[in-house]
Amino acid sequence: MSSTEGGKLWGGRFVGSTDPIMEKFNASIAYDQRMWDADIRGSKAYVKALEKAKLVTTEEMQQILQGMDQISDEWSKGVFAIKPGDEDIHTANERRLKELIGAPAGKLHTGRSRNDQVVTDMRLWLRDAITTITESALQLISTMVERAAAEIDVLFPGYTHMQRAQPIRWSHWILSHAIALSRDVERLYEIKKRVNILPLGSGAIAGTPLDIDRELLRTELAFDGISLNSMDATGQRDFVVEFLFWSSLCLTHLSKMAEDLMLYSTKEFSFITLSDAYSTGSSLMPQKKNADSLELIRSKAGRVLGTCAGFMMTLKGLPSTYNKDLQEDKEAMFDCYDTVHAVLQVTTGVMSTLKVNQSVMEAALSPDMLATDLAYYLVRKGVPFREAHGISGKAVFTAESKNIALNQLSVEDLIAISPLFGSDVSSVWDYRSSVEQYSAPGGTAKSSVTGQVEHLRNWLKTQAQ
Amino acid sequence: MSSTEGGKLWGGRFVGSTDPIMEKFNASIAYDQRMWDADIRGSKAYVKALEKAKLVTTEEMQQILQGMDQISDEWSKGVFAIKPGDEDIHTANERRLKELIGAPAGKLHTGRSRNDQVVTDMRLWLRDAITTITESALQLISTMVERAAAEIDVLFPGYTHMQRAQPIRWSHWILSHAIALSRDVERLYEIKKRVNILPLGSGAIAGTPLDIDRELLRTELAFDGISLNSMDATGQRDFVVEFLFWSSLCLTHLSKMAEDLMLYSTKEFSFITLSDAYSTGSSLMPQKKNADSLELIRSKAGRVLGTCAGFMMTLKGLPSTYNKDLQEDKEAMFDCYDTVHAVLQVTTGVMSTLKVNQSVMEAALSPDMLATDLAYYLVRKGVPFREAHGISGKAVFTAESKNIALNQLSVEDLIAISPLFGSDVSSVWDYRSSVEQYSAPGGTAKSSVTGQVEHLRNWLKTQAQ
Amino acid sequence: MSSTEGGKLWGGRFVGSTDPIMEKFNASIAYDQRMWDADIRGSKAYVKALEKAKLVTTEEMQQILQGMDQISDEWSKGVFAIKPGDEDIHTANERRLKELIGAPAGKLHTGRSRNDQVVTDMRLWLRDAITTITESALQLISTMVERAAAEIDVLFPGYTHMQRAQPIRWSHWILSHAIALSRDVERLYEIKKRVNILPLGSGAIAGTPLDIDRELLRTELAFDGISLNSMDATGQRDFVVEFLFWSSLCLTHLSKMAEDLMLYSTKEFSFITLSDAYSTGSSLMPQKKNADSLELIRSKAGRVLGTCAGFMMTLKGLPSTYNKDLQEDKEAMFDCYDTVHAVLQVTTGVMSTLKVNQSVMEAALSPDMLATDLAYYLVRKGVPFREAHGISGKAVFTAESKNIALNQLSVEDLIAISPLFGSDVSSVWDYRSSVEQYSAPGGTAKSSVTGQVEHLRNWLKTQAQ
Amino acid sequence: MSSTEGGKLWGGRFVGSTDPIMEKFNASIAYDQRMWDADIRGSKAYVKALEKAKLVTTEEMQQILQGMDQISDEWSKGVFAIKPGDEDIHTANERRLKELIGAPAGKLHTGRSRNDQVVTDMRLWLRDAITTITESALQLISTMVERAAAEIDVLFPGYTHMQRAQPIRWSHWILSHAIALSRDVERLYEIKKRVNILPLGSGAIAGTPLDIDRELLRTELAFDGISLNSMDATGQRDFVVEFLFWSSLCLTHLSKMAEDLMLYSTKEFSFITLSDAYSTGSSLMPQKKNADSLELIRSKAGRVLGTCAGFMMTLKGLPSTYNKDLQEDKEAMFDCYDTVHAVLQVTTGVMSTLKVNQSVMEAALSPDMLATDLAYYLVRKGVPFREAHGISGKAVFTAESKNIALNQLSVEDLIAISPLFGSDVSSVWDYRSSVEQYSAPGGTAKSSVTGQVEHLRNWLKTQAQ
Repeated sequence: MSSTEGGKLWGGRFVGSTDPIMEKFNASIAYDQRMWDADIRGSKAYVKALEKAKLVTTEEMQQILQGMDQISDEWSKGVFAIKPGDEDIHTANERRLKELIGAPAGKLHTGRSRNDQVVTDMRLWLRDAITTITESALQLISTMVERAAAEIDVLFPGYTHMQRAQPIRWSHWILSHAIALSRDVERLYEIKKRVNILPLGSGAIAGTPLDIDRELLRTELAFDGISLNSMDATGQRDFVVEFLFWSSLCLTHLSKMAEDLMLYSTKEFSFITLSDAYSTGSSLMPQKKNADSLELIRSKAGRVLGTCAGFMMTLKGLPSTYNKDLQEDKEAMFDCYDTVHAVLQVTTGVMSTLKVNQSVMEAALSPDMLATDLAYYLVRKGVPFREAHGISGKAVFTAESKNIALNQLSVEDLIAISPLFGSDVSSVWDYRSSVEQYSAPGGTAKSSVTGQVEHLRNWLKTQAQ
Repeated sequence: MSSTEGGKLWGGRFVGSTDPIMEKFNASIAYDQRMWDADIRGSKAYVKALEKAKLVTTEEMQQILQGMDQISDEWSKGVFAIKPGDEDIHTANERRLKELIGAPAGKLHTGRSRNDQVVTDMRLWLRDAITTITESALQLISTMVERAAAEIDVLFPGYTHMQRAQPIRWSHWILSHAIALSRDVERLYEIKKRVNILPLGSGAIAGTPLDIDRELLRTELAFDGISLNSMDATGQRDFVVEFLFWSSLCLTHLSKMAEDLMLYSTKEFSFITLSDAYSTGSSLMPQKKNADSLELIRSKAGRVLGTCAGFMMTLKGLPSTYNKDLQEDKEAMFDCYDTVHAVLQVTTGVMSTLKVNQSVMEAALSPDMLATDLAYYLVRKGVPFREAHGISGKAVFTAESKNIALNQLSVEDLIAISPLFGSDVSSVWDYRSSVEQYSAPGGTAKSSVTGQVEHLRNWLKTQAQ
Repeated sequence: MSSTEGGKLWGGRFVGSTDPIMEKFNASIAYDQRMWDADIRGSKAYVKALEKAKLVTTEEMQQILQGMDQISDEWSKGVFAIKPGDEDIHTANERRLKELIGAPAGKLHTGRSRNDQVVTDMRLWLRDAITTITESALQLISTMVERAAAEIDVLFPGYTHMQRAQPIRWSHWILSHAIALSRDVERLYEIKKRVNILPLGSGAIAGTPLDIDRELLRTELAFDGISLNSMDATGQRDFVVEFLFWSSLCLTHLSKMAEDLMLYSTKEFSFITLSDAYSTGSSLMPQKKNADSLELIRSKAGRVLGTCAGFMMTLKGLPSTYNKDLQEDKEAMFDCYDTVHAVLQVTTGVMSTLKVNQSVMEAALSPDMLATDLAYYLVRKGVPFREAHGISGKAVFTAESKNIALNQLSVEDLIAISPLFGSDVSSVWDYRSSVEQYSAPGGTAKSSVTGQVEHLRNWLKTQAQ
Repeated sequence: MSSTEGGKLWGGRFVGSTDPIMEKFNASIAYDQRMWDADIRGSKAYVKALEKAKLVTTEEMQQILQGMDQISDEWSKGVFAIKPGDEDIHTANERRLKELIGAPAGKLHTGRSRNDQVVTDMRLWLRDAITTITESALQLISTMVERAAAEIDVLFPGYTHMQRAQPIRWSHWILSHAIALSRDVERLYEIKKRVNILPLGSGAIAGTPLDIDRELLRTELAFDGISLNSMDATGQRDFVVEFLFWSSLCLTHLSKMAEDLMLYSTKEFSFITLSDAYSTGSSLMPQKKNADSLELIRSKAGRVLGTCAGFMMTLKGLPSTYNKDLQEDKEAMFDCYDTVHAVLQVTTGVMSTLKVNQSVMEAALSPDMLATDLAYYLVRKGVPFREAHGISGKAVFTAESKNIALNQLSVEDLIAISPLFGSDVSSVWDYRSSVEQYSAPGGTAKSSVTGQVEHLRNWLKTQAQ
């Protein structure tokens, strides 16, 4: 029969032929071949369970294992040849197995469905991917923490609403981003825990009927647990969605850091200089040095959030269990992984090579940024803060009206605004003293920032297993 | 001065007046008043820290605490009057405090910024909201588990690709959704852990300079920990984003269950009958009974995912620390909470009142759904699965060609396809025997489904603190 | 019967009672009351068609028309009382009509369904809303064009990649945004054309069977055309989606303009000063003047895109015709309208009141921004551009190495790089001459910018009907 | 210098080297090579403008034109070799030109920037892509219209809320989707109009300074108009966003049609049978025939909406003009095109080959679907509709209570509910008569459906230029 010739695994019954556009539309081999290793690992574990269940002989098992090793070798060497009819990685590997070992290959899929096979592959693949991403994230955090430790004495303006707010330590700024990333890593552990669950043995929908030992499968594949319900196991893609969302949140964090750095690297701010390794020029304007790396980092948050939202839209309102719509899962997963991985590495490069222009940063501190301290001066003399805030505001206004800096107001000027001002007000105008006030946990005083560095160093050590 | 009269907290300096459209655009009181209780709790804790730091006297503290209690009472009774100039809940409560107790009210905001105040309020509010949602989710899961236990003997067709696949237990279907929800609850605990962190004492950006004891604040407000970096604390909204995403994922799960139930309640399936309490009629067609509840459940996944994606888009590329863009956080958080809360309650109502039409369900089982079992029959006789699958497929095709059911093929018909068939093939055609084969963990055999019920019952008990 | 007492319009059949949470979940009156006027207009037209079809007498028609006018009056005056059971605006108005005129009210809904009624209301409402938005957009564009005309002689740095690129006119920048907005207006006309189609007479699904003259309805309600298929008419919400997307794109444009203005209003750039009417202060820092208006404008793009994506997600995979999921349409439509309307007005305010700091802008021009002109100098002497670009780049590098400005390189320095340089190179270093070179259509020369102003002024005139 | 060796077009100045990960992250050649033809066409037009401006000689122009033709030939034959350093298609083509013709190649980029070059390429590419998509959409509509014409006599249940509502024509259903698609085509024309605008001559930001005749470029490249402002021209991607949104809306329409067809092809409905060419089987269950084509169609709406939302998120809050973030535009555009193109073709295949099971469809009509007609029977006897609706509802209830069909109620049963019923009520129970009542425009009567067919046939004719 042509149906057995054609080699579609689900042959046997169909009499019509498939539209070639439909065939291409339906096939996933172009991208799911990336899971070749996970697919082979899954099949090797599965054949052991089949042997235990006496569904294959020990000899057949050996043949299958050896065949799979050879296929693995072919993939590793880049010589595996995809053939027409290999619609997905599962079909391709099994087709090749049959070529290599003949009849016993036909026993491998006993009691298994592509529905449980594909999620097993994906979970194995994503587990490894998460490990890689975790390492990249930790390397970035580590870079940032050590940079923060080294440059702890650099002050510069802290901004809110993109307006100069209060003097802070540059390291305080670095750590604000590092701490966000450390939460991302912790979220990643939570996700990994849910990724690392064995779905194999769920069949197409109802479970497995043939004494397949799922605990053996779990151990072989080093999963942490076993899925609890076969319909849920084959039909849910929560683990993918969680990873897509994770990527979106992490890159939203990095888009924020990139935006700050882009501001700081404008001519107008000139706080930092990006390494040439992370800049590019213009095909038209010879003087340009563009922070392309930062722009790319910023842009990718949109890409991954779009992928996440799109896949969730695909899931919305689907009926239970496997529907072909779920095939959107893999390209989404791969693209987010590739994107996040590249972004983390490039960000590490940027952060480890950029140059801080300390003198420019400190020159950008201005006395009006101490207006809050001026209010606190009065608070310490018993003025309710609301009133002190108003008085300080008037001082700012007076200085602006006179076109002088706030600290150039004479004591007389100040006394005219509030009789509580005295000559000791001069102590307010020191940026280093100002930051040292903020010594509560989380503040920008040297001790607090050092505390943050120590906290993250310790945290990093506990991650290093 | 008009600036103190007008009562804008940041008065003092401005000389222009505000565009009324801008004023309305800028104000959040219309929705953030919902956090009145959290705002008052936060201020009560804060004044205790001020007293400890000697920034207010004990007497002033008492006045502020009593004033706050009175304001709380006004909100509880619905008599708190919002006035022009009350641009947000913080301004409104402080304005009222000043009316009630006069001058000492002006000391409450010492060392605090709306930047740390607002996130403190939001975290307190969301912590309580998560508790409520958790309870609603647990109640839904519990309803589902008990229903699954009670109706464990009902069989019906399991579908993949919306096509009849294999016979399964109705309870297996219920539990597939309950297990997804139990993962949602576990994710909610992880989020709550990150929500329950004290940001107060971070000031506007740089931290707090005035001996404010953040540990005292943490204890007073029952937070689990203290934020590590003041810039991160005031500028991040991860905890909101995580909740929005959680809502999206949870409602995507419920959209799936709703879609199944809608299918099952069509005339054509007729597997279930919705209670009238969750149905509505048509203004035009007298015979209609529509599953509006299910349609609403299905629809809300879009709403919350849209809110989540929209807020993340707002965050994308923002610079560090507080920017007014963050004001989008509150409506998003409130709307997702309200939506998820209502959906969970309505779903519980639907699931506890729908009627199962057991006879229709079982009549929908058809012999072709046992084609896999027919293949397994051959597998047990040593036929490789791929071959057995092909043979079974031919049997299906033969039956279709003869226009008879698969189990009406004679033994002779079957032998013509494969000589391995024998008269014992008749044992295949029993739906109850079929499901009992799927006895591995997660399968649809009675023992496996009972195991799932027990697992979830035990899990529910551990949640019941 | 209690069913007729209860007054649910679709009563008659149900015997169960409704869950109050479900009732609230199901009801839309809280927000769709906003369409009271459209609903009344639709019903007034409809009763005329009923009269023509002899389904109501002329007298009954008069009673209904007068009743409707009275209801309209009650809504206008804010005295219409919503009662329990008024689940939507249609039910509320019809219930009130019955109270006012008794039995004939029961004839109004003949041959009509809420399915065609609600989209008729929405299309009427949105048609008016689009008119309002168009006016606001035109006013903003007009403000921008006139400002561009008035300040055409102000030069400042044009940026690409947030780095100084080439000198341009400030007006050129203004017009780049105005032109984007003019495309938005043109898109709005296209959408309005599709909004302004009459769906009434489509019934619930199948059309109208009772000699209802749809052409009469169209004329009465001033629609441009009649829907072509009753299932499409009642089940599609394209017109809403198009408006939501339009809002998203328009606000993405304004988020871009706001971002530029925020950069320009940082201390570091100091190119513009926002009016106090569109700025706010800080509750903590007395010196702060924040561009809240711009931040709010920037933030709203996320909100509306989220709403658009969310509603499209709700639509994804819905079956044909009316499903209750569609009820998500109205809040989405109202919120986007309110948001866009406010943003356009506030942006107009910002753009008409901000102050340009011309001297700062012009001081920010720097010789390296003329490096492209330096290359063109060589191109005019026959050097291929690629080579000229390289030579100019070397000049930039030499100047940087010497720590001098590009125009401070001596002719000897330049000749050392390329012998084609001569003393006439000094003519390159004039910013006003530089911009005047860009005189092709769309360029930044005065003539080109004036051309753009004229183009938009003419375009605005043609919109003013 | 190594900088000239390396061949980066913007070389000349940089002294550092680039991180290889950054290099890969930055490069777009992997996907933008797809625009090789547009890039060559753009350069060929551009060199003509250079010649007219006397920036190249006629001979140089000829060399460049011939070189470009040869490059085009290499791409066509698949022999163009991408080399290290070819970061994008522009660089690759120009590098190759230099290899082929030497020095004159260096003049091609005179006065041009990649900023205006890349959008020119994209607009040329997308213009052609839209033409292709329009043709595919028209072919699908045409298939649907002719099918509707051929099967106009098939009746089946119309559903609202997934519940049987009223009898309709199958063709009425088909046309409801065809009409939505015809609106999509009209939207596509509007977008194409805005795509087909020439940006070339805008330079990097400020325009073009060297007598480049933009009108000549427009004519050469067959654009409809010229961009009005160089900053807008190089910095906006509205034309991409509009196409992405268009794809999302179009595929949302097709997801709706696919959902209907999936319902109709369930065993329970059995209204249609999909061709084997658009179905697949199961690797486990031999009897399965899955509507994979429909599931894929349904799923893609999520993919493209995600891409659209993601790209808009990337655009949100970007500053003016070209930023590297915009590089996200191309993959988004290509992927949406490929997806929509495949979906339209597969849908055409599905719609032209599915088999309608007319007898099953008509057997699914049930007397309760005529309850509205029963109410209209009373309306024609003068009963107000609200009352008639209630009476008909009671008849439905009575029939259900007696467990008989609505049309099996005796005249006595009916008279007991309302004395206005008479023996002529039997005329109500005819499905063909019922549908014929809906003869107003847009209704399901044969004349109305024929009218829709004619309308669309005429419309299709006008598209066929």
